[in-house]
Amino acid sequence: MTNTVKAVQDFYPDDFAHCYGCGRLNTLGLHVRSWWEGDETVARFTPRPEHMAMPGFVYGGLIASLIDCHAMGTAAAAALRTGGSAIGDAPSPRFVTASLKVDYLKPTPLGPELEIRARVVERSERKAIIMATVSAAGTVTARGEIVAVRRPEGMAPPA
Amino acid sequence: MTNTVKAVQDFYPDDFAHCYGCGRLNTLGLHVRSWWEGDETVARFTPRPEHMAMPGFVYGGLIASLIDCHAMGTAAAAALRTGGSAIGDAPSPRFVTASLKVDYLKPTPLGPELEIRARVVERSERKAIIMATVSAAGTVTARGEIVAVRRPEGMAPPA
Repeated sequence: MTNTVKAVQDFYPDDFAHCYGCGRLNTLGLHVRSWWEGDETVARFTPRPEHMAMPGFVYGGLIASLIDCHAMGTAAAAALRTGGSAIGDAPSPRFVTASLKVDYLKPTPLGPELEIRARVVERSERKAIIMATVSAAGTVTARGEIVAVRRPEGMAPPA
Repeated sequence: MTNTVKAVQDFYPDDFAHCYGCGRLNTLGLHVRSWWEGDETVARFTPRPEHMAMPGFVYGGLIASLIDCHAMGTAAAAALRTGGSAIGDAPSPRFVTASLKVDYLKPTPLGPELEIRARVVERSERKAIIMATVSAAGTVTARGEIVAVRRPEGMAPPA
């Protein structure tokens, strides 16, 4: 399913598709992809063997990265939906992270595919607040709260 | 100086030296290294070209990762200092992240070496609260607040 759904990151304009976490044009990146399931967005990611905190457990910085990119994708998907569009109907708008909070509830085992789910809890034209969870084998191991804002004009690739 | 100072991560026991962010034994990792400068700890890191949010700017997930590992190192260094030890006098104790909050104050330019500074603001035997900043070319671009706890017994490499 992951490969056939339309993910919000597939429709970032090329200039904004180089993110290490979710840019389809970053050949060394993580390639996080996020799509709707009802009122939630979902992403799935299998950490690489090197993504460990210690042998057997996933690195917290990776978990923060997955939450971050999935939340930005969620903000973009919600902005599209509010405008009456599905993912892929138009270029995905690019949000950036104003703040990111992650609570690590328990160690995340390294091995299983992780599921990242998110939901917009507050939204204006400029900003979205997003709650996210990360689960491994059906157990929530981390929770995130993220503030996303529309990319400022000054944050653009060099002309 | 970075290469000659004793960094707290240099003295994590081998079993706990595989972290993607700061493990000296993780050949694919970031190798964050933290040392004292007075009452603050310092780490320096130059992002790789692929560590971008978009061309010209550092990826927020990398910034969260740098703050995370530097804060765990700071908690370990503070535990050593409280016990009367300098970094390297004894194995560094291993802390893990209970929560991580990052405020992205402004875009971080990709190119310059980043400086991560931290300070312990509250500490018990089991736990430390740490404030951190990330600077690029002398400007603070992100601020972190981290809760570190002693590694739980159950979070250990497989025997």
